[in-house]
Amino acid sequence: MRGSMTRQVDRVNGQVPRRSAREAAALIPPDATVAVSGFGGVGYPKAVPRALAAGDRDLSLSVVSGGGVGEEIDTRLVEAGAVERRYPFQADRTMREAVNSGRVAFHDVHVSRMGDETVLEQLFSIDVAVVEAVAVGRDWLIPSTSIGPTPAYVAAADELIVEVNRAQPLALGQMHDVYRRSPPPRRGSIPLSYPGERIGTERIEFDPGALAAVVESDSRDSPYEFREPTGKDEAIAANLAAFLADEVERNRFLRDRLCLQFGVGSLGNAVIRALRETAFPERDVVYFGEVIQDGLLDLLAEGVVDVASATSLALSDAGQDRLFDNVESYADRTVLRPVDVSNNPDLVSRFGVVGVNSAVDVDVYGHVNSTHIGGTRLVNGIGGSGDFARNAMISVVALPSVTSGGDVSRIVPFARHVDHTEHDVDILITEHGIADLRGRSPRERAAAVVEQCADPAFGPALESYLQRAGEGDGHVGHDFETAFDWQDG
Amino acid sequence: MRGSMTRQVDRVNGQVPRRSAREAAALIPPDATVAVSGFGGVGYPKAVPRALAAGDRDLSLSVVSGGGVGEEIDTRLVEAGAVERRYPFQADRTMREAVNSGRVAFHDVHVSRMGDETVLEQLFSIDVAVVEAVAVGRDWLIPSTSIGPTPAYVAAADELIVEVNRAQPLALGQMHDVYRRSPPPRRGSIPLSYPGERIGTERIEFDPGALAAVVESDSRDSPYEFREPTGKDEAIAANLAAFLADEVERNRFLRDRLCLQFGVGSLGNAVIRALRETAFPERDVVYFGEVIQDGLLDLLAEGVVDVASATSLALSDAGQDRLFDNVESYADRTVLRPVDVSNNPDLVSRFGVVGVNSAVDVDVYGHVNSTHIGGTRLVNGIGGSGDFARNAMISVVALPSVTSGGDVSRIVPFARHVDHTEHDVDILITEHGIADLRGRSPRERAAAVVEQCADPAFGPALESYLQRAGEGDGHVGHDFETAFDWQDG
Repeated sequence: MRGSMTRQVDRVNGQVPRRSAREAAALIPPDATVAVSGFGGVGYPKAVPRALAAGDRDLSLSVVSGGGVGEEIDTRLVEAGAVERRYPFQADRTMREAVNSGRVAFHDVHVSRMGDETVLEQLFSIDVAVVEAVAVGRDWLIPSTSIGPTPAYVAAADELIVEVNRAQPLALGQMHDVYRRSPPPRRGSIPLSYPGERIGTERIEFDPGALAAVVESDSRDSPYEFREPTGKDEAIAANLAAFLADEVERNRFLRDRLCLQFGVGSLGNAVIRALRETAFPERDVVYFGEVIQDGLLDLLAEGVVDVASATSLALSDAGQDRLFDNVESYADRTVLRPVDVSNNPDLVSRFGVVGVNSAVDVDVYGHVNSTHIGGTRLVNGIGGSGDFARNAMISVVALPSVTSGGDVSRIVPFARHVDHTEHDVDILITEHGIADLRGRSPRERAAAVVEQCADPAFGPALESYLQRAGEGDGHVGHDFETAFDWQDG
Repeated sequence: MRGSMTRQVDRVNGQVPRRSAREAAALIPPDATVAVSGFGGVGYPKAVPRALAAGDRDLSLSVVSGGGVGEEIDTRLVEAGAVERRYPFQADRTMREAVNSGRVAFHDVHVSRMGDETVLEQLFSIDVAVVEAVAVGRDWLIPSTSIGPTPAYVAAADELIVEVNRAQPLALGQMHDVYRRSPPPRRGSIPLSYPGERIGTERIEFDPGALAAVVESDSRDSPYEFREPTGKDEAIAANLAAFLADEVERNRFLRDRLCLQFGVGSLGNAVIRALRETAFPERDVVYFGEVIQDGLLDLLAEGVVDVASATSLALSDAGQDRLFDNVESYADRTVLRPVDVSNNPDLVSRFGVVGVNSAVDVDVYGHVNSTHIGGTRLVNGIGGSGDFARNAMISVVALPSVTSGGDVSRIVPFARHVDHTEHDVDILITEHGIADLRGRSPRERAAAVVEQCADPAFGPALESYLQRAGEGDGHVGHDFETAFDWQDG
């Protein structure tokens, strides 16, 4: 029913201001705060950013997205010197360098909060929203491969530019469930009782007076690619599967349903695939997370996972092909939501999510650095990892025990940057083992992490740090003289 | 109506197993996990812990409370060598020393999660619950001056011991709103639409088969005392009032209602009092927090605050006298709830709470240490500070810029322990000023914190640290060689 309605919609409907990408780009003031659609590297506008970067105006834009977007925005606009500020996430080498060198000012936000922060105007006030759609009318649009905080951006923007992308299937609308919350203090809870339920529409509606331009485009997303799983990825996945198999037996709230979330990236994707081998008999397995990655398509296709809820189809090119060829078969069991619903703290808690997220490094007490290499160099941003780690029934952090060269331990005595505290991590998993931190004192946690999870090459140095740390008084032992130079200590 | 019903209830109703404190204490196995009522230093059992401590058995108990309890538990039982483990909060010198020396293993939990953690048996499995009540029947009790996670403890315990305390007014029941959530994954949201609304009952119900003993007692709480506000407290309070006065003008979601929360302690209490001088015309001011302290009684009495919702009456002796003499006049506008409702992340978000919490120290980028002096020595525990800091519409951290002797800066370059990350702090306030961190990059935040909030005696050393930190590449600048010894750097 929903499918047949979608097919009758034209790409561009009614009286709308059609413009070329160049004309639309010219409507954006040189110092504007520009919000763009896009999450997980997909569903972002392409033609207008390209035209902006190619223009000869002197721009100092603030660029706001939900999650990762394509090189049209985070490479080209940066190379053109057009970006002064960036919120709240990026996954692009050029943008990362610009942030780390201080050329672009970056502010990081839990992505579940971006809708509220936008409406509250706490961080910025949006001048123009540039949004990719599969179809548009004079007061509505249907998003493409991601939703993210786009409904809030559209509502808050003074002016709206819509890119209608013919390379994105019109049938994507069948996946969408756009639900908008009222603001505090009279806001209700989100009336979602199951990850697969629908409570909204396929459309984002807007004030027709805000629609400044409709631009046609025809370019596919350029999503990031997942690398092939390494031996370590597979060992981590096996440890996770073993943990889950035990936990579903122990935990009576997982007796009839296991609700999972996996972080974005190659490790997350590898871990998902590994669950194909794990049997969870007599249980529904559902996914309530932020992104749908290639591995999850397999699990949906094979019926291992019943339904999947997310805010983005963060698929590789091959994954997009597979999905686009079968949108209707996936659409019944796959829902894309605004990110303030997909990542909502209360829903994560209500559904009893088991959240699995990766990290840059973790310390022996359970503090997690998920954003800054060496404590200083931004990788991507916190994204939704805090939404899930803080509110999951069980919060798992899974990572290799050493960096890919093997010469740096990712288990450290003292995290150089903390994104998730010891209060928000239950289980730590590496390729070597599983440390269950629940209910344990800091001393006990540290001993378990070193014993179960550290690489043997670093175990003795970590143990000798803990020895030094234990000589002082205190609930959490530290030797601050050698906390950062612990291998020489 | 509710009042007159309460007055007809006897202290002890129906057939219950009356026991002396000593007989009841003897029912507790020597290695039991014992959950006790009590939060904010009030509403904890007194007679049975005293009898346990005075007995001659060799005990190794795990003691679980919601928040702070009295010396009957955290001093006497520790001195008797009876405690092996403690969850998730304490506010007692003797217990603190035992934790910091490693004699007692301590595990800290966001207190909003204690109900769930108990039911899920993730941290422990409760053998016996010892609960203070103002009245008891064969399958119900009415809590006294705090509720905390007691409903979950009562439901999870194999055996229940109730202390009926005649020193606590029976009319306290009029304040209570005991609402119990169903567990995940089929749990709904909490149907509370306003901080003053009631959705439950005054009673905690239980399986009559679990009731092992009813003990009568007649001792008042021994709550901690608030010190008189210092000049710094007053300057901090004035800065907070100035911030709020500006913010209610700027923020349209505060246009008709300001919903506040204040952390526990003398500073919080001083800050509340200062709001008496601040006018919020044409706005409801309501309180949705964790504890009701003395200062809040003034605001309720004077009509500055319309209603107050919390889980504990964390009052001084004088405050208790004042409340006990006028329970009925406060009860219409004061609600005590289970802590998984009072601190519920979704309600904090839905009501648009402006949360004000203190800290041990904070770093220039906005990471907050609220639990460990010097990064190692436990003070109390995280309590509810994370529930509010993470989910508030605006998260304020307010603290003096230096320790009471003035020789140690509480604004530091790098926090030695992190409980709340830069992602969860919007505003930093000291006696010197206000730093608005919203939407700012780490470099901008650091500059604002040093300029607005640091004590002038430490400003130059902090600036020189930031100079060194800025010489390296990276989004968050640090000089790890001098991050902890920054004053000599």
